[in-house]
Amino acid sequence: MPRTEIKTLGEFGLIRRLTDGLTNRQPSTLVGVGDDAAVLNYAATGDADLRTLVTTDLLLEGVHFNLEYVPLRHLGYKACVVNFSDIYAMNGTPTQITVGLGISSRFSVEDLDELYAGIRLACERYNVDLVGGDTCASMNGLTIAITCLGTAKADEIVRRNGAKVNDLICVTGNLGTAYMGLQLLERERIVHRDKQMSGDTIPAFEGREYLLERQLKPEARWDVIEALRKAGIRPTAMQDVSDGLSSELLHICSQSKVGCAVYEDKLPIDYQAAALAEEMNLNIVTCALNGGEDYELLFTCDLDDYEKLVPLDDVYIIGHITKPDFGTILVGRNGEELPIRAQGWNAF
Amino acid sequence: MPRTEIKTLGEFGLIRRLTDGLTNRQPSTLVGVGDDAAVLNYAATGDADLRTLVTTDLLLEGVHFNLEYVPLRHLGYKACVVNFSDIYAMNGTPTQITVGLGISSRFSVEDLDELYAGIRLACERYNVDLVGGDTCASMNGLTIAITCLGTAKADEIVRRNGAKVNDLICVTGNLGTAYMGLQLLERERIVHRDKQMSGDTIPAFEGREYLLERQLKPEARWDVIEALRKAGIRPTAMQDVSDGLSSELLHICSQSKVGCAVYEDKLPIDYQAAALAEEMNLNIVTCALNGGEDYELLFTCDLDDYEKLVPLDDVYIIGHITKPDFGTILVGRNGEELPIRAQGWNAF
Repeated sequence: MPRTEIKTLGEFGLIRRLTDGLTNRQPSTLVGVGDDAAVLNYAATGDADLRTLVTTDLLLEGVHFNLEYVPLRHLGYKACVVNFSDIYAMNGTPTQITVGLGISSRFSVEDLDELYAGIRLACERYNVDLVGGDTCASMNGLTIAITCLGTAKADEIVRRNGAKVNDLICVTGNLGTAYMGLQLLERERIVHRDKQMSGDTIPAFEGREYLLERQLKPEARWDVIEALRKAGIRPTAMQDVSDGLSSELLHICSQSKVGCAVYEDKLPIDYQAAALAEEMNLNIVTCALNGGEDYELLFTCDLDDYEKLVPLDDVYIIGHITKPDFGTILVGRNGEELPIRAQGWNAF
Repeated sequence: MPRTEIKTLGEFGLIRRLTDGLTNRQPSTLVGVGDDAAVLNYAATGDADLRTLVTTDLLLEGVHFNLEYVPLRHLGYKACVVNFSDIYAMNGTPTQITVGLGISSRFSVEDLDELYAGIRLACERYNVDLVGGDTCASMNGLTIAITCLGTAKADEIVRRNGAKVNDLICVTGNLGTAYMGLQLLERERIVHRDKQMSGDTIPAFEGREYLLERQLKPEARWDVIEALRKAGIRPTAMQDVSDGLSSELLHICSQSKVGCAVYEDKLPIDYQAAALAEEMNLNIVTCALNGGEDYELLFTCDLDDYEKLVPLDDVYIIGHITKPDFGTILVGRNGEELPIRAQGWNAF
């Protein structure tokens, strides 16, 4: 691939190239990139009950991603999707993003084309407009700061604080898989480094593509949001699983002032993820509880919704909400009760 | 000052501490920090003509600021104000911000308290709500990503593309002063480093506090926006001066498809800035044209507004808009015509 230095385009030339031909899909986008601020019209729908949602995520090289094995196109895609996921977790629809980029001279114009190709693809697939940004030089590596705006009807917004005693606790998809994808990439990175000396450099990913996909190119669960709406189910509390199930459960329980019982044998685990965990001597349940980056939805809903819930694809009931004095409990396979603890990041 | 390591609080403890006691001032803020996304209601005013504005800025250590001489409290304040400035430059009012922070273990909890004290002060003074954010570890230094939302009536928004031939070109305040403040800080940093060996470590800032203030703690020109409104002047094009007058003039001219003539002897220059430039053998006009970080407003308005414009405090007419084939010209003190060129950043 040719390598064009960013300095040959300059700041404004680079911005022109990256934003060239951007089209706006949302009727609420009046003015996109190119002025001091974008101009949006949420009143365009004529719906006075429409609320605006805003969420932001920072992705830093060396902390959130390693460019030794994360392709820039995937990174751009993922950086968008993790923001969309937050908007869906409010039961809303993402509509616009702004993109802040800090880039060092290590990156070429072609690298940024790749990153933006991923950003554009995510916007296209999720029907979101890229309306603004800030592109600047960085001393150290790549910084991506995305803010996502979205909308939701006032009476459809689902927060973290609405879970009630006896509500069902549900998650979508499976848990811990993105984490196992990361373990696989890390292992192969080290093996690959050693193998390079012997000339045999093809990583052993065969049959494990799904783990990689979950780590490198996650999707946000708009399909579940739509299915819940069609089924007439309104979650009482909801959030996306970005830091791992444990800490997300604790958020919902503390904000809703309730406890919970979650059953180990109900946690949805992917077969490939479990097999790799065994091979690597990891406890897959711990990975599912604390792994993070699943971008699945965790939600609670009324017990009366049980019949409507069961037929839904890829939605799993993993426990129920309890009185607060019960605590936040994981019930093991043999009936033993373990307190759920949050990890969050501990990079310091 | 005591030093508390961030790891003693953990991610969630740190976020609780930083966002403790935040109050929302804007009627449009329904839900602030603490959920997947903030919830805003721009329909709250009942004004169907209200538009939403969004802008974003990334500030990176080593590129945008040097913590050897920038106090964290000032940095937090400035990081907010530069975003507010973009919203005012659309003739709007800032209403909410989100704050993304990347922090390395070099920073203590007390450091972040200071940074947040500045952010909170800016929000208080400008009547803006802090509604969300993302706080994460960083490998290298401090990253601040702020996105600002604001509102404006549809028919009051001023973009960059509305300048017409014969319009007056105006700027507020003075130009190049923030840049001279930076030069002063840089010079003293080096002198200070040498003096430390001899034990004499008081920097020579006396009488030059204004230069430092312009660099370290700029304000956004809401006062001018208000004065223009009261005077019944609607600018035809406007933007804030963040990269230097030259590149901002070129933005307005290229987006409005016009040329301009700006007069060197009309550029508002601060006396202290000029004196320091002379002392440091710098051309103050070059600093005014390309220095950046002034956060003043550059706007054009109809020639018919001349009488209303003249009485306004701190607003200076520096030239006029011309036909595009005239080019973008700086007219020197002796009548010589020089083409205006953009610098932008060139950190690569």
